[in-house]
Amino acid sequence: METDEIIVHSSSHDYPIIIGEGIRYEVQSFLKKDYTSILIVTDEQVGKLYLRDVLSGLSTENVFHSIIPSGEKTKSIEYFYQLQTEAIRYGLDRESLMIALGGGVIGDLTGFVASTFMRGIDFVQIPTTILAHDSSVGGKVAINHQMGKNLIGSFYPPKSVIYDVETLRTLNQKEIRSGYAELIKEALISDEFTFRSFLKTNLLALSSEELQEHLRIGIQIKARIVESDEKESGIRKFLNLGHTLGHAIEAELGYGSLAHGEAVAIGLLFSLHVSEDLFSSNLPYQALFQWLQQNNYPLNFQYEDMQSIITKMKKDKKNVKNMIQMILLEEIGKPIVKEVTDQQVEHYLKSFVGKLVAK
Amino acid sequence: METDEIIVHSSSHDYPIIIGEGIRYEVQSFLKKDYTSILIVTDEQVGKLYLRDVLSGLSTENVFHSIIPSGEKTKSIEYFYQLQTEAIRYGLDRESLMIALGGGVIGDLTGFVASTFMRGIDFVQIPTTILAHDSSVGGKVAINHQMGKNLIGSFYPPKSVIYDVETLRTLNQKEIRSGYAELIKEALISDEFTFRSFLKTNLLALSSEELQEHLRIGIQIKARIVESDEKESGIRKFLNLGHTLGHAIEAELGYGSLAHGEAVAIGLLFSLHVSEDLFSSNLPYQALFQWLQQNNYPLNFQYEDMQSIITKMKKDKKNVKNMIQMILLEEIGKPIVKEVTDQQVEHYLKSFVGKLVAK
Ligand SMILES: NC(=O)c1ccc[n+]([C@@H]2O[C@H](COP(=O)([O-])OP(=O)(O)OC[C@H]3O[C@@H](n4cnc5c(N)ncnc54)[C@H](O)[C@@H]3O)[C@@H](O)[C@H]2O)c1
Ligand SMILES: NC(=O)c1ccc[n+]([C@@H]2O[C@H](COP(=O)([O-])OP(=O)(O)OC[C@H]3O[C@@H](n4cnc5c(N)ncnc54)[C@H](O)[C@@H]3O)[C@@H](O)[C@H]2O)c1
Ligand SMILES: [Zn+2]
Ligand SMILES: [Zn+2]
Repeated sequence: METDEIIVHSSSHDYPIIIGEGIRYEVQSFLKKDYTSILIVTDEQVGKLYLRDVLSGLSTENVFHSIIPSGEKTKSIEYFYQLQTEAIRYGLDRESLMIALGGGVIGDLTGFVASTFMRGIDFVQIPTTILAHDSSVGGKVAINHQMGKNLIGSFYPPKSVIYDVETLRTLNQKEIRSGYAELIKEALISDEFTFRSFLKTNLLALSSEELQEHLRIGIQIKARIVESDEKESGIRKFLNLGHTLGHAIEAELGYGSLAHGEAVAIGLLFSLHVSEDLFSSNLPYQALFQWLQQNNYPLNFQYEDMQSIITKMKKDKKNVKNMIQMILLEEIGKPIVKEVTDQQVEHYLKSFVGKLVAK
Repeated sequence: METDEIIVHSSSHDYPIIIGEGIRYEVQSFLKKDYTSILIVTDEQVGKLYLRDVLSGLSTENVFHSIIPSGEKTKSIEYFYQLQTEAIRYGLDRESLMIALGGGVIGDLTGFVASTFMRGIDFVQIPTTILAHDSSVGGKVAINHQMGKNLIGSFYPPKSVIYDVETLRTLNQKEIRSGYAELIKEALISDEFTFRSFLKTNLLALSSEELQEHLRIGIQIKARIVESDEKESGIRKFLNLGHTLGHAIEAELGYGSLAHGEAVAIGLLFSLHVSEDLFSSNLPYQALFQWLQQNNYPLNFQYEDMQSIITKMKKDKKNVKNMIQMILLEEIGKPIVKEVTDQQVEHYLKSFVGKLVAK
């Protein structure tokens, strides 16, 4: 079976991201160790589609699974504790493995459980969404707090990532859009050429080859960044492009009404809007706007309570000293971190909404 | 002000354990960094005694405190979440600090909160019990699960430990006994000379100098061990001497009825009992038994439900493959790890109880 492998370096260990078609059937062959038992965590939708396939390829004796509801709401303290309970009940020990089979929600939640179960056991990701290419590189795992996204978590890289791109064929358009927003983000941070080539994609007629190629590029861009700044003290913050507003929109609408990447897409456009004004340069606001529209991204952005959005932006955990930290672009491939005041953000949000409504 | 300093090395960073009298008044001078804000976590009893002293020595602008009830029951998922909520409410960010002011419970809980708040912020320990000399070396932080102690946690060393031995004067006899059990444990693992000299202590007439000396020795023994095996894959397990049974007793009686170290003391005696039999060597069962009795350790050990204790011993997270892992002593200073079956444990528990009752 043909596979691609990208090695990611982290301070605790290096791990491979193995990309291929149909590799979900042979997970055992990618495990580096004999485990006393394995707990697969998945959600209802993914479980229905792929759990059996994964189970069929595991020859370890004690393989268990926990199936939880689909969606962001399971990234909660309640499901965190429930999975701990199940792991104890199934008799997992320190030589056991947890496998996250699903999108970013399952990856973040399972990774955080694994990082704290008996002070940390091995975990492996089997991402099944485009978006999860992002969450499976960089070792960030987390759950949400009622007061904000990903506020409780740790840095805990997986032992390996087994990315079966065949599973991506069952994604609906919303999830495809969501995942592509993060790819576009990576391109914007990286270079003009990548960005322009990604914008050629028509999400309604996406080919396997094209997608696999974009995922590889996206993963490489992200890996390069997190390797040089694992704990997010410097350039890793650039990956937050589009996320300050994105996260605030998600929280404002209630998690789940927009997909994560759909909210990020609005955030990306907003950061180009602000960047254009601040650096008066030639940024691709218009090109991105058109591509998002053509690909049916929901861009309706009319919130009564602008103040509540701003308050939420201030709660972002990247903030320091009560200013809002935004990632902006001096040009494509030249991101910078900029602290802005409430007043500035309000001003820009208003002009942004104006521009969107005018179209 | 005179202080002793022991440096502990960990894979993420080195940190000092500063020991002195009255140093709780000058915490600021030991901080290595300017923090945007500080959250002191303490319990009701310790708060009443020492919070004001610590606050008086802090010149950082935003200093907050959370006071929670005293006792093991706060090492729970509920208090974990509550402290996360308070940290968010107080506006802590990634450049903020958490300070644990209290015993091992406050240290373990606060450390675990700090390790997961926004994926990890700095934390400093101000231990106020003898037992906490143990919990402040080695980076283990955790909360309990209903089904077992310390099952949820991580490795997250503090930035520094500020050990004001003056605070130990307000400890009651129960807490003194509890802390000394861990010192005795360290001595048993280390060498005969240390063990014999610790047994000369009369806990009812403990001098400051003696205590400070014993703490220094205990910390050094523990530091040496954890430095060579941070993640507990090998010799660090020796520190579990007395704990397999100790933890089971704690869980059986309900946390809080015996102090942690009181339960460990019974466990230490039990491991000498088993070791004597298995290695038929000349172990100090009798000497330890007498010392424990003279110092009023509760050794009543009559449990109706022996099976329930054994089940709990099997749940210990050090176990692998369903055997019970015990730490035994071939001789003083020569600990080994031994896997024993349920039947063996039952047999030894019975003879142990018999021996205790006979006295
Ligand atoms: N850790 C990180 O660095 C990082 C980075 C980016 C995003 N994230 C997190 O990722 C999460 C979002 O990830 P997501 O968008 O993958 O969400 P998700 O896991 O909820 O998946 C989205 C939906 O698609 C379904 N699904 C998943 N795979 C499928 C498949 N192959 N076929 C059909 N349906 C499928 C799921 O059941 C779910 O309903 C957010 O919580 C975000 O915070 C984390
Ligand atoms: N992390 C580790 O490596 C490690 C090692 C050993 C023990 N522990 C943990 O430590 C905990 C036990 O620690 P502990 O015995 O310090 O418990 P504790 O924190 O509950 O303190 C015991 C009691 O003494 C009171 N107290 C504390 N300081 C006082 C003072 N100076 N004067 C008067 N009263 C005071 C407290 O209010 C409490 O009621 C357990 O949860 C155990 O699992 C952890
Ligand atoms: Zn994202
Ligand atoms: Zn202990």
